[in-house]
Amino acid sequence: MRNPQLNSNGELTHLLTVEGLPRAILTHILDTAESFVPLADRDIKKVPLLRGKSVFNLFFENSTRTRTTFEIAAKRLSADVYNLNINASSASKGESLLDTINNLSAMQADLFVVRHASSGAPHLIAQHAAPHVHVVNAGDGRHAHPTQGLLDMYTIRHYKKDFTKLRVAIVGDILHSRVARSDIHALTTLGVPEVRAIGPLTLLPSGLEQMGVRVFTDMNEGLKDVDVVIMLRLQNERMRGALLPSAQEYFKHYGLTQEKLALAKPDAIVMHPGPMNRGVEIDSSVADGKQAVILNQVTFGIAVRMAVMSIVAGA
Amino acid sequence: MRNPQLNSNGELTHLLTVEGLPRAILTHILDTAESFVPLADRDIKKVPLLRGKSVFNLFFENSTRTRTTFEIAAKRLSADVYNLNINASSASKGESLLDTINNLSAMQADLFVVRHASSGAPHLIAQHAAPHVHVVNAGDGRHAHPTQGLLDMYTIRHYKKDFTKLRVAIVGDILHSRVARSDIHALTTLGVPEVRAIGPLTLLPSGLEQMGVRVFTDMNEGLKDVDVVIMLRLQNERMRGALLPSAQEYFKHYGLTQEKLALAKPDAIVMHPGPMNRGVEIDSSVADGKQAVILNQVTFGIAVRMAVMSIVAGA
Amino acid sequence: MRNPQLNSNGELTHLLTVEGLPRAILTHILDTAESFVPLADRDIKKVPLLRGKSVFNLFFENSTRTRTTFEIAAKRLSADVYNLNINASSASKGESLLDTINNLSAMQADLFVVRHASSGAPHLIAQHAAPHVHVVNAGDGRHAHPTQGLLDMYTIRHYKKDFTKLRVAIVGDILHSRVARSDIHALTTLGVPEVRAIGPLTLLPSGLEQMGVRVFTDMNEGLKDVDVVIMLRLQNERMRGALLPSAQEYFKHYGLTQEKLALAKPDAIVMHPGPMNRGVEIDSSVADGKQAVILNQVTFGIAVRMAVMSIVAGA
Repeated sequence: MRNPQLNSNGELTHLLTVEGLPRAILTHILDTAESFVPLADRDIKKVPLLRGKSVFNLFFENSTRTRTTFEIAAKRLSADVYNLNINASSASKGESLLDTINNLSAMQADLFVVRHASSGAPHLIAQHAAPHVHVVNAGDGRHAHPTQGLLDMYTIRHYKKDFTKLRVAIVGDILHSRVARSDIHALTTLGVPEVRAIGPLTLLPSGLEQMGVRVFTDMNEGLKDVDVVIMLRLQNERMRGALLPSAQEYFKHYGLTQEKLALAKPDAIVMHPGPMNRGVEIDSSVADGKQAVILNQVTFGIAVRMAVMSIVAGA
Repeated sequence: MRNPQLNSNGELTHLLTVEGLPRAILTHILDTAESFVPLADRDIKKVPLLRGKSVFNLFFENSTRTRTTFEIAAKRLSADVYNLNINASSASKGESLLDTINNLSAMQADLFVVRHASSGAPHLIAQHAAPHVHVVNAGDGRHAHPTQGLLDMYTIRHYKKDFTKLRVAIVGDILHSRVARSDIHALTTLGVPEVRAIGPLTLLPSGLEQMGVRVFTDMNEGLKDVDVVIMLRLQNERMRGALLPSAQEYFKHYGLTQEKLALAKPDAIVMHPGPMNRGVEIDSSVADGKQAVILNQVTFGIAVRMAVMSIVAGA
Repeated sequence: MRNPQLNSNGELTHLLTVEGLPRAILTHILDTAESFVPLADRDIKKVPLLRGKSVFNLFFENSTRTRTTFEIAAKRLSADVYNLNINASSASKGESLLDTINNLSAMQADLFVVRHASSGAPHLIAQHAAPHVHVVNAGDGRHAHPTQGLLDMYTIRHYKKDFTKLRVAIVGDILHSRVARSDIHALTTLGVPEVRAIGPLTLLPSGLEQMGVRVFTDMNEGLKDVDVVIMLRLQNERMRGALLPSAQEYFKHYGLTQEKLALAKPDAIVMHPGPMNRGVEIDSSVADGKQAVILNQVTFGIAVRMAVMSIVAGA
């Protein structure tokens, strides 16, 4: 069976998940993003690659921040952008998801950016959308968040150059994190020899070892000599739930402090997908410290989203 | 008294209702729309006809879908578009509708697209707006939805060419439908010799015969030998209300099935303004069948709205 | 200590408050605005001064009208505009204001337009934002609303030419009004010799005399021989509160009627920041009368906001 993200020439036509994408495609996205990064320093930060194209932000799940990054990326490519909060609209009128999608396709959309609480919704949409429509997953359930995964890869490559010599640790609520899932697939595909997952047993999914990941429940052990630390956001509902005793307890064991960070390599970088819970998963001194590249991730994220959109929907 | 939609040269300056518009104006809109349809296949789907103009989407009643079609049409004409959800704003501060409109006019609006739950609100706005402001009705109460009426006419002309030889049936909740009202006026003006209304007595308004419409309560009789079937959406509130026994009962009598459709001419087309209630007013096999042109209506709708906007607000 | 609104060359880099801005800066803004006013009569109402720049409307407090005026101004300068309703987003995820701002800065914002219920929030943001980001205050708590103050000055200069010969009365709820505060600072800086504040004692703040303002509780005395009357909106909550007996009582004493207006100079102009409470602070015959320049304020407001944005963020 053909990868549903690639067309018959093996080119990327949708971005649904990092899983199963060949290394050449990932590298092509990162290289394309690199060509967009210098735009940020220009007076006019726009290129005409998607001029006259229509990008629809279909956010079935609200996320102003992610929606804004895609809107920026699309406008910098000179596309016209339409923001649709779908919950408030047709869904409430009893129309099916596919009828909604067919309708929007009929408005001559070129690209759907889809955020949905249900895993697999972007796949379903890509499967049924008209042939001229491209789909980019902006986060679906616990499944995938491929542009976040790719911008994490961009950030790592920017600071560390060579993936094939790295130890990367992902810390926190791996179980519920679509970011972690996307990161693990991307790191593995790009040749990172050692990927570590660190967290309490209740927040570690089964099957990590089969994906080639080393699992640690002791953060001090897990951070030892790593080049990259990717901290995950602890959702508020987890702090009150049955899976964790308390936010304080969590911080004590898995919050990234200067002291714990000292166990990593001296030039290790600290990443976080945001928004951060300071004092829960990360100490403020680390978040604002020299090793943090958290805001750079945001900046690179615009270039990476421009790359993805221009590759799938470009002429 | 002069038609408030026409200027002193008899040119369209507002689009408030199809009622009372001369055939030449309707035909001009359809012809103009036809010139925009090929844009959809171009790489850059834009024309500069409204460049630098300001289009305000004033939606006093929420409708993401209709708002989006106008936003697309305006941006393809290169206008700047401002989306205002008026409920959430000045209305709650006790300001009058006319003060709100005067304020927005003073911001040098060129075109107001107005959706309002009260019949006549767009007329009132057109009457009081500054002379440089044009008004397009995007649906007011039960009164009119002229761009939907016009896109229906465009669709019929596209598939049937000659209006003067057609039998057209409109099926469902005629009583509460602004679409039905706009369609009937447009069909009559364009010379359709036989317009039929089909529905239960409780959903048929009085006065249809005076408008030249043949009324049927039996769908099998009403569909016989028609060229066009326009299905109407059954609002959810009707299904539970006093006017109808149940959605199931409604479907049995007035839902469009393959079997009922076979009574129409073999090349009859099936239309629906959306969003559809599959299994209530239309069977899925018909909605997705060969005779359905429902998604084409959506595509043509963009061109028709471009035509209307460029005619009223163009240089 | 340097004025945080000026850069090291003494040029305006943020607009946070009118207080403390030198007369030359205010005059420069008004002159720049004057150059934009004729755009309104052109077919294409745009200039490329902010082409490729990103303007973020950060409205922590909802205001469709003010947000729209900034959106129009930014688009007429050819900027890309992003509307963020921040309440609905990161704030609810527990992220700090400064983390939100840092994130948006990292998306290469050029200009933040900030509306916030807390006095001083725009200052805080300007202090912490990246050096390439400019901040314009669109209203913070009871503190300041500088673009409203400036458009009021533009309007006065337009009709009265010379500030140094004027008597200007501000009428109503001075205590809670950021508009009044901004107007008083601007009028004083621009050399208006007599600024009057008129209102019930409960709605007059202390310290007005120290700002050089003459205080009146009797409206008939206060309006005598003034050139300009600036009416303030009476917030709904004040009408029911402990500070005022009733809206009727308020109108009797401080509502602007034709009769009271006759006490001012015959060519006095009447201003109001909107939205108006007709029959509460202003009689309809005055609001729609010959001396009212209320809608002109709105029109000039677009030009003034274009001026401010192009000055702080222009190349």
